[in-house]
Amino acid sequence: MHFTRVLQHITSYEAGKPIELVVREYGIKREDIIKLASNENPYGTSPKVLQSIQLEAMSLYPDDSYYELKDGLAAHYGVDSQNIVIGSGSDQIIEFCIHALHKEGLKILHAGVTFAMYGIYAKLYGAEVIKTPDNAHNLAQFLESYQTHKPDIIFLCVPNNPLGECLESKQIEDFLAQISPDTLVVIDGAYQEYATYKDSARSINPSHFITTYPNVIYLGTFSKAYGLGGMRVGYGIAQKDIITALHKVRPPFNITTLSLQAAIQALKDQEFIHSCIQKNFEEMARYEKFAKDHAIEYIPSYTNFITYHSDKIQSSKCCQWLLERGIIVRDLASYGLNAFRITIGTKEQNTRVLACIQQYLEQ
Amino acid sequence: MHFTRVLQHITSYEAGKPIELVVREYGIKREDIIKLASNENPYGTSPKVLQSIQLEAMSLYPDDSYYELKDGLAAHYGVDSQNIVIGSGSDQIIEFCIHALHKEGLKILHAGVTFAMYGIYAKLYGAEVIKTPDNAHNLAQFLESYQTHKPDIIFLCVPNNPLGECLESKQIEDFLAQISPDTLVVIDGAYQEYATYKDSARSINPSHFITTYPNVIYLGTFSKAYGLGGMRVGYGIAQKDIITALHKVRPPFNITTLSLQAAIQALKDQEFIHSCIQKNFEEMARYEKFAKDHAIEYIPSYTNFITYHSDKIQSSKCCQWLLERGIIVRDLASYGLNAFRITIGTKEQNTRVLACIQQYLEQ
Repeated sequence: MHFTRVLQHITSYEAGKPIELVVREYGIKREDIIKLASNENPYGTSPKVLQSIQLEAMSLYPDDSYYELKDGLAAHYGVDSQNIVIGSGSDQIIEFCIHALHKEGLKILHAGVTFAMYGIYAKLYGAEVIKTPDNAHNLAQFLESYQTHKPDIIFLCVPNNPLGECLESKQIEDFLAQISPDTLVVIDGAYQEYATYKDSARSINPSHFITTYPNVIYLGTFSKAYGLGGMRVGYGIAQKDIITALHKVRPPFNITTLSLQAAIQALKDQEFIHSCIQKNFEEMARYEKFAKDHAIEYIPSYTNFITYHSDKIQSSKCCQWLLERGIIVRDLASYGLNAFRITIGTKEQNTRVLACIQQYLEQ
Repeated sequence: MHFTRVLQHITSYEAGKPIELVVREYGIKREDIIKLASNENPYGTSPKVLQSIQLEAMSLYPDDSYYELKDGLAAHYGVDSQNIVIGSGSDQIIEFCIHALHKEGLKILHAGVTFAMYGIYAKLYGAEVIKTPDNAHNLAQFLESYQTHKPDIIFLCVPNNPLGECLESKQIEDFLAQISPDTLVVIDGAYQEYATYKDSARSINPSHFITTYPNVIYLGTFSKAYGLGGMRVGYGIAQKDIITALHKVRPPFNITTLSLQAAIQALKDQEFIHSCIQKNFEEMARYEKFAKDHAIEYIPSYTNFITYHSDKIQSSKCCQWLLERGIIVRDLASYGLNAFRITIGTKEQNTRVLACIQQYLEQ
């Protein structure tokens, strides 16, 4: 059998190690494991969402129009339902974008270090992946690359996973003004709820962006602030011609019936989101203080994680040390960095993680 | 923006009308609506599955290795875990197969009338779709088409949705013996649990097939007999080289955390499956008797649905009549047939459906 040639160069996405694996491989009790590797919401899911789930609907396919969820998102963002496409996580919409623009010689452009799925999906469709020299988003470099390579799709991760830095809304507008309307610009706002809370200058208004720049698609997700990482619901907001094209590549029933129920309710409980984000930044301050106290470099973060990168710590060694003690964080060695990313956990979790890093430093 | 040219020819999958839509469009009360349009299990989900769901895991990504589910399936089918890939419904694995074999000039072959997603996914990847002249599976025609067109992928839907007929295992073996190992043969067993119950000669043993014919992939689903239509879990069973290729095109976290929980438990409750299937065929006998009593032609079915096709009934008119009375069945006009497919419901549902068809005939 002759598999498509692009598969030769595919390395699969490296997911955060699941708790189950640490139980199996290290014989650590499930209740003793802290997983802060996948930027899940450590406060779980809104109790109102938990109460609303009707399990008996598991046997029934969802309303594939996702009518009520789109209505909720449309009201939340001040756009029309027809401007919205629903994905199995926002990462499925990344695939939709690449599939919908697919052609021989497709090119995408993204930051030096950013969400790995942009590149993975691109390669799966045989596209060429161009990265800026800098790891973090540098729009001058983006512009230079754009002019040189004329990419078909530009990915801006705002804020950027796995680094944590975040472009300002105004900077992005200045950049977009110089981009041809033939180039699709994906603004991935998976962590936007956090950035918006921390600094309004970094808040993206999708309605404004898609109206002013009809070649923009904004991506959002229920996996982070909304506490539904396991339910796989994301969305794209764009002008109708883009949404129509994405709907053509969307498989039917791409989210589950319970995911649909959960997302509809989660959107209604903004109080829960607000309280989670508030605690997130209170707890992040402890990681910042710890870093300063130990002269560890870190990237100021607009998300629910913090990235430590320091010559004082060999990231792979430290991550392995933590793993053997039941703490899962994300080593960024696979991104070519001596750095590791820690999801900001609950107060108790962070106390244990910081104590464990302290022990590592003192050994 | 220039969308990929294949999108021009894409018509999206026509999903069964959801209950929500009938509530909205016809103002019929939700509790008065009977949906027998999508071959969902009318007996719902096993109570043991319902009890096992841990909602608080919604915020956590699933164990992306799907270790426990693959282990369960491996034991159930007598294969190795490495022979298994998990999909968001078995239809995602159809897409994986087409994506993994994608090339300029890819060709697929399927029956004249069969599951629409084979053709839809093929067209999304720019492949050529070849159909046999007969609507139902006719292996002589398949062989002739195979020899003429040398397709890269052959889809056998066993039993066939939306017609209900089912090839015998022995017939498929005789066919496979004449097919080059370079051609991927997909045996879609979405309704196999029903066929196996009704006639052992039509039961497919995936372990035997993939061992004897290494170019075969068997597809199964939790959406039908297992009562998890809304949870989107399917699987593919094949030799390791095929599975490895499919894993490369599989997105991470392609099923939800609760779907994973549900599928693991559902597989353990074979008693529930058996009792649902038993009732299915008891109730199907009523539809067969009704058809004979009214001289309506139908296709003997090895599934959980029955297809009526008769010059006496204009299917679109009859389906609309039923819809206005809160009964959703599937008109097959979009397949070019004057026929409609009814999922076998519960005793009470079937009583109302048959009475309503009777009224339609008498008007």
